[in-house]
Amino acid sequence: MTDFTKTRAAFHLPEGVTYLDGNSLGPMPVGAADRVARMMTEEWSQMLITGWNRAGWYRQPRDVGDRIARLIGADAGQVVMGDTLTIKLFQALSAALALRPDRRVILSDGGNFPSDLYVAEGVARATGATLRVVAPEDVAQAIDDELAVLMLTEVDYRTGRRHDMAGLTAMAHAAGALTVWDLAHSAGAVDVDLAGADADFAVGCTYKYLNGGPGAPAFIWVRPELADAAQPILQGWMGHESPFAFDPSYAPARGIERMRVGTPPVIAMAALDAALDVWDGVAMADLRARSIELTEAFIAGVEAACPDLVLHSPRDPAMRGSQVGFCHPQAYAVMQALIANGVIGDFRAPDVLRFGFAPLYNGLDDVARAVDVLARILREGSWDRPEYHRRAEVT
Amino acid sequence: MTDFTKTRAAFHLPEGVTYLDGNSLGPMPVGAADRVARMMTEEWSQMLITGWNRAGWYRQPRDVGDRIARLIGADAGQVVMGDTLTIKLFQALSAALALRPDRRVILSDGGNFPSDLYVAEGVARATGATLRVVAPEDVAQAIDDELAVLMLTEVDYRTGRRHDMAGLTAMAHAAGALTVWDLAHSAGAVDVDLAGADADFAVGCTYKYLNGGPGAPAFIWVRPELADAAQPILQGWMGHESPFAFDPSYAPARGIERMRVGTPPVIAMAALDAALDVWDGVAMADLRARSIELTEAFIAGVEAACPDLVLHSPRDPAMRGSQVGFCHPQAYAVMQALIANGVIGDFRAPDVLRFGFAPLYNGLDDVARAVDVLARILREGSWDRPEYHRRAEVT
Repeated sequence: MTDFTKTRAAFHLPEGVTYLDGNSLGPMPVGAADRVARMMTEEWSQMLITGWNRAGWYRQPRDVGDRIARLIGADAGQVVMGDTLTIKLFQALSAALALRPDRRVILSDGGNFPSDLYVAEGVARATGATLRVVAPEDVAQAIDDELAVLMLTEVDYRTGRRHDMAGLTAMAHAAGALTVWDLAHSAGAVDVDLAGADADFAVGCTYKYLNGGPGAPAFIWVRPELADAAQPILQGWMGHESPFAFDPSYAPARGIERMRVGTPPVIAMAALDAALDVWDGVAMADLRARSIELTEAFIAGVEAACPDLVLHSPRDPAMRGSQVGFCHPQAYAVMQALIANGVIGDFRAPDVLRFGFAPLYNGLDDVARAVDVLARILREGSWDRPEYHRRAEVT
Repeated sequence: MTDFTKTRAAFHLPEGVTYLDGNSLGPMPVGAADRVARMMTEEWSQMLITGWNRAGWYRQPRDVGDRIARLIGADAGQVVMGDTLTIKLFQALSAALALRPDRRVILSDGGNFPSDLYVAEGVARATGATLRVVAPEDVAQAIDDELAVLMLTEVDYRTGRRHDMAGLTAMAHAAGALTVWDLAHSAGAVDVDLAGADADFAVGCTYKYLNGGPGAPAFIWVRPELADAAQPILQGWMGHESPFAFDPSYAPARGIERMRVGTPPVIAMAALDAALDVWDGVAMADLRARSIELTEAFIAGVEAACPDLVLHSPRDPAMRGSQVGFCHPQAYAVMQALIANGVIGDFRAPDVLRFGFAPLYNGLDDVARAVDVLARILREGSWDRPEYHRRAEVT
């Protein structure tokens, strides 16, 4: 049985703050500051260039990838770290499309994170492919035998709606297409099972539920049967079969290593590696059960106490990730008022209050406090102050 | 007059080590460990998601870019940070090629860093372009009116040979082509003048002479007149004109900001920002003069004391960056022996001993010690031990 009291103690959470925005940026694990300090003063400073071997910097993208593999239903040796989610998605989508040269349709949904759609637009324009975007609930019926790649984010960043990864992958395969799954809001949030779903490509970020820090490196997974055939369009030296031979021609490494691109971000990787320590001993089934407990309690609490809010997430927990959205016409100001009162969630345009529940550190006490503060703000109308309507650069 | 005693004191250099490998990985600036620790414990830990505004994380890629601009002859507002050099080169080359749609030839040279050629091969294959690779000294005569993009690394990673950026750019322009310059071995090493050379695109890394730490973020510069026309093939949300509107369609930001891609690496950026503090008060002309003094002294010293070695770098300092290469048939083992004796340079296949001179922290005492140790190892033949022939994973 996973000990969530222990995992909670592994995070630094500021006094008086109920943090329900770990789906945007996870809080700092207590061990991360020390680990990064050691990387700086014992590795970089002392070892200098020899740190690539002696401190294992060179191997880190796969060592850290192995630790993430367990959390997403993959095996060791199948995941590598690096770059950003946008870059990894570009690689996965480009490679998938190239594996279906006779087809030119990419299918996605309007609940996908906009940056994913931007990447797909760019890839489509560059390759003469077509991007079709349908409503999330219409994806299944839009799969046809023109389809090259089904590209979806498993859990919708706004609604928290969770796609049926196994079911949609089976339909895509039956139609002769490949799948690319973005796990930004699933890795560390739900019980992802890439192997069980027979997925083809998956990518994700590590600064949300995996708590790797702002701008932490992304990951990419490719189904082992496809890994040696997938062409990494971003041909970087770290993905070469022999990077230090300085061969003038590119020859991709075997397996997932070919998806490495440039020099890995070692300082950031140290923070992420420390953040992954917290996952040791966490069973993903326990995580999922606790996540459902938290989101169910939050929905019930808000619906009982806040009659003005409209649930924006699926009511069925099986269809939901680890977040809950509610709509309010003045959602931006309401969220600013919440933050000013120590409950941090976030606003997503145009009218969504978004609350993420991270079982590693959120508990029923957070749910109760968030419901109380939200109900009070709405009851008193205290969100309607000029300072809460003022938009910040990043929201 | 730049005070190089002061800049030297700004670095942590291990006792007894003569570090001539800053062209591979710069040493840790004393201020970097503190800055990163503060980023962790005062920003991430305390501000959580609000750090994007309150700590300026969101603006960092351009704020840090402004600090680099001065070092490469560019103006504030023209440089952004992010990703790796490989990714930035992919963006620059793709954008340059798209600006010459009627031409399909990319020209580079065999002294370019292999990863740059890998990127160009990938871009060429994806776009139906042709990559021509000639010897470094044959670039000028290979420029013709079929050329779309001249893609060069200003300073050769192996020989230290420096291209004439202004001259070659003028020839490329006269032929109707654009230029992409990789400044990996020039930024912080020589007096780069992008504006004066009328260059079109430039990219570089920050973990060499800029001392940003292993895997530090890269930079990209686009000539202001082209910046609004350059299409960033990697269409990420941070390059969108309005990232937080969550617009379903991509519309590139104005100017260089469109070359941003995904979420920036904030921890790494803190280290880099601290490393750039050391550059305050450094005049690039002084840096160049001191670099030449060091490399001239090293060449003279080695040639006088080590008759077995053959100079692999241009003898004319005007044609040379801030590094010196010497060839030896057993260069790998000789370099291992040097490292074991506290002089750190590096080996580049097949037979090059490479020594980088970073004026910020290297002085004539380093030159003298390196010459002495190298001469002794060669004279005594002490490099010829089994342990010095054993290859490490990363060399």
